[in-house]
Amino acid sequence: MITSSANQHIKEIRHLRDRKCRSETGLSYIEGIRIVFEAIKQKVEILEIIYSPELSKSTTINDIIKQAGLQHIEISEVSKPVFEYLSNKDGPQGIAAVIRQKWIPLENIKTNGDVWVGLYEIADPGNLGTIMRTCDAVQAKGIILIDNCTDPYDPSAVRGSMGGLFSTKLCKTSSEQFNQWVENNKVRVIGTSDQAKVDYRKITYPIGMVLLMGSERQGIPETLQKICKDLVSIPMKGSCDSLNLSVATSILLYEILAKYEENLEK
Amino acid sequence: MITSSANQHIKEIRHLRDRKCRSETGLSYIEGIRIVFEAIKQKVEILEIIYSPELSKSTTINDIIKQAGLQHIEISEVSKPVFEYLSNKDGPQGIAAVIRQKWIPLENIKTNGDVWVGLYEIADPGNLGTIMRTCDAVQAKGIILIDNCTDPYDPSAVRGSMGGLFSTKLCKTSSEQFNQWVENNKVRVIGTSDQAKVDYRKITYPIGMVLLMGSERQGIPETLQKICKDLVSIPMKGSCDSLNLSVATSILLYEILAKYEENLEK
Repeated sequence: MITSSANQHIKEIRHLRDRKCRSETGLSYIEGIRIVFEAIKQKVEILEIIYSPELSKSTTINDIIKQAGLQHIEISEVSKPVFEYLSNKDGPQGIAAVIRQKWIPLENIKTNGDVWVGLYEIADPGNLGTIMRTCDAVQAKGIILIDNCTDPYDPSAVRGSMGGLFSTKLCKTSSEQFNQWVENNKVRVIGTSDQAKVDYRKITYPIGMVLLMGSERQGIPETLQKICKDLVSIPMKGSCDSLNLSVATSILLYEILAKYEENLEK
Repeated sequence: MITSSANQHIKEIRHLRDRKCRSETGLSYIEGIRIVFEAIKQKVEILEIIYSPELSKSTTINDIIKQAGLQHIEISEVSKPVFEYLSNKDGPQGIAAVIRQKWIPLENIKTNGDVWVGLYEIADPGNLGTIMRTCDAVQAKGIILIDNCTDPYDPSAVRGSMGGLFSTKLCKTSSEQFNQWVENNKVRVIGTSDQAKVDYRKITYPIGMVLLMGSERQGIPETLQKICKDLVSIPMKGSCDSLNLSVATSILLYEILAKYEENLEK
């Protein structure tokens, strides 16, 4: 059992709090019974499970440890103070894991029949986590992060995703490359804009598409608006001029899902 | 200009960070250009504006100060360090206000024609803020907070509401009183539950209703499920078993809005 937070390996794990370190190593630290359980269930590449027997009060944790053993995953036992030193949470549950990030290249994405979400410069990791959770719920295929976006492996995004992180494919790219890819592959992109005159409920959504959402502050820039087949808006009847980004994305994803299903019923 | 954070009045304002203090005084501290601007625009009872000339770099702040002067609102000039001592934010904008909380009693609520949202033991102030923002967008009349809910005047809720706090009426009550009120006034309540067999898109929503949402952890308790006219669910196709609460509430509110409007078109 590791009992000192001065331990070099423990320090390296804690370092995964920094985006720079996550990006250099391609790793991520995830924490909590539910998310570690989902990672195992969904066959995420887990390098190591960190576990504090003192803190672990749930039978699920025993199941996780057993499963991890069967899959030959390394298990590090640590003392309560060491776990708390690593933890991002109040009242940590005593289980965490180091996983390998998974990204797919843009050129591998085919939209045939699937819905992808494009996010331009999304800044809030909580929003990104919530969007991954909704992507899982509607079985959108994945998320394309365009230009300077927050990190889906940020602890707040991981937490908010409730495991959606593992079922949603992730890709990052630049506006230029995204534009090029859309053009080359004749990808149908539906964008949103406060100024758009078309109500999001009044259009037909192509089977196989990218739903493009802009940043919390500025929406979709003009260069990206140009490549949209349609620009739609969600009606706003009050004094706020926009919805929360994860809410807006989710409303659109559920509308697309409903339209797809109406089509199947016909 | 107040230049010391040891100033008794400043200490009292900072104390409004604590829920207990907010609840005892019936006051709340709001911060940032946008939210203070909305408070003035929407004629919220403002007791005092706090303002740091050194930090205030926006012309909107001058407009706010001018407006506040016209409305005879007290304006306290404070130094940059004092403002930072009060502030909940990184990079504070130099303007804040102390406002009076506004609550309405349950017995004054009539649902004729309006949509109200009932929230049972919602715990996350960010979720509550986002729900107020969506309530503003669909012009839902207000929110009834049932049993132990987080505080809509919590700084994270205020921030997330983007001003929706001021356009949404607020009421708090207990499950017992809520049940009684529903019975006495024949209020139509539509609840949500993961287990419900009815798809949220397949029902007719009564004109004049309460949309009842359960807590993040446990949903709606049985005693409250019993009083629901219908229980609906949002389809989930992935491995997560629920959506983020503010997302689920918003999807339902937009569905109700759309159904109301379809009705008007007929």
